[in-house]
Amino acid sequence: MHGYTSNKEDYLRRLRRIEGQVRGLQKMVDEDTYCIDILTQVSAATRALQSVALGLMEDHLAHCVAQASAEGGELAAAKVREASDAIARLVKS
Amino acid sequence: MHGYTSNKEDYLRRLRRIEGQVRGLQKMVDEDTYCIDILTQVSAATRALQSVALGLMEDHLAHCVAQASAEGGELAAAKVREASDAIARLVKS
Amino acid sequence: MHGYTSNKEDYLRRLRRIEGQVRGLQKMVDEDTYCIDILTQVSAATRALQSVALGLMEDHLAHCVAQASAEGGELAAAKVREASDAIARLVKS
Amino acid sequence: MHGYTSNKEDYLRRLRRIEGQVRGLQKMVDEDTYCIDILTQVSAATRALQSVALGLMEDHLAHCVAQASAEGGELAAAKVREASDAIARLVKS
Repeated sequence: MHGYTSNKEDYLRRLRRIEGQVRGLQKMVDEDTYCIDILTQVSAATRALQSVALGLMEDHLAHCVAQASAEGGELAAAKVREASDAIARLVKS
Repeated sequence: MHGYTSNKEDYLRRLRRIEGQVRGLQKMVDEDTYCIDILTQVSAATRALQSVALGLMEDHLAHCVAQASAEGGELAAAKVREASDAIARLVKS
Repeated sequence: MHGYTSNKEDYLRRLRRIEGQVRGLQKMVDEDTYCIDILTQVSAATRALQSVALGLMEDHLAHCVAQASAEGGELAAAKVREASDAIARLVKS
Repeated sequence: MHGYTSNKEDYLRRLRRIEGQVRGLQKMVDEDTYCIDILTQVSAATRALQSVALGLMEDHLAHCVAQASAEGGELAAAKVREASDAIARLVKS
């Protein structure tokens, strides 16, 4: 059981839509679509991926990190550290 | 003919790899993978998409915008405006 | 007392350095420095600000959110929600 | 003369406002303001800096890069390369 488990179907549906967007990008490149129109779709797919990441992070904070914090000690500190590293990767990507 | 036409096969290969990454994300969610490991892969897919966008933008500046600039006039100004809007969308996504 | 209180001097020193970077940017614009060199310094100041934000967020998760999670209930849920909104603003800025 | 020269006063005014925002952040840290409120202001300052960067980039494309493109040859290619590298730094910062 993870933070996202209860929203699993929702995440899968969103990821399948993003997969469709990426396939659409291949079609656009293949059919010589105008560069700026492709870039607009790349930005849309990037935003959709980041939105999935923000949802997963919120679920993670609300479950895994909250539970570790309630127990306290070194595991709690390690979970906060790990979540912070993941937030940094999100901000920089 | 667009800026990216001569690199078309390279872009298609990269987009197919990103499609595979997004399918891998669905498998991870489906198999209850640990949240942070999923987030690491989301960041990797996001960076790969942004790298495709930066490549397309460079090709676009080097061809479409450069050609319009060489001709000058209102079309040149419109192309710079359009490219700047796309750069802003990239920075904000 | 907040999460960042014990690192207060460090944050103040970093923010004073960023203030100096922004004043340096004004000097560069005023002295007609080459655009790309200004942009490089804007990127450096932006990264420094984001690094301050990531530090504040980690301190916040380790203290305020962890403490609320240990107490549980609606306050804990509200703190996670609030932190997630702040993470979303960071990712989008 | 650079792309931004005719907008110099506007950029200076915006950078002075950002300097004020960064000084405001120091005051907030010094007065033990709640972490999330500081983070909201850091995001605002970051967005303001990125907006300055996007303006400078548009001016640069419209002047320096357009002029080099009109002349063509190796200098034009070098200018596009240099602008693309700066765009990549913006996207990643």
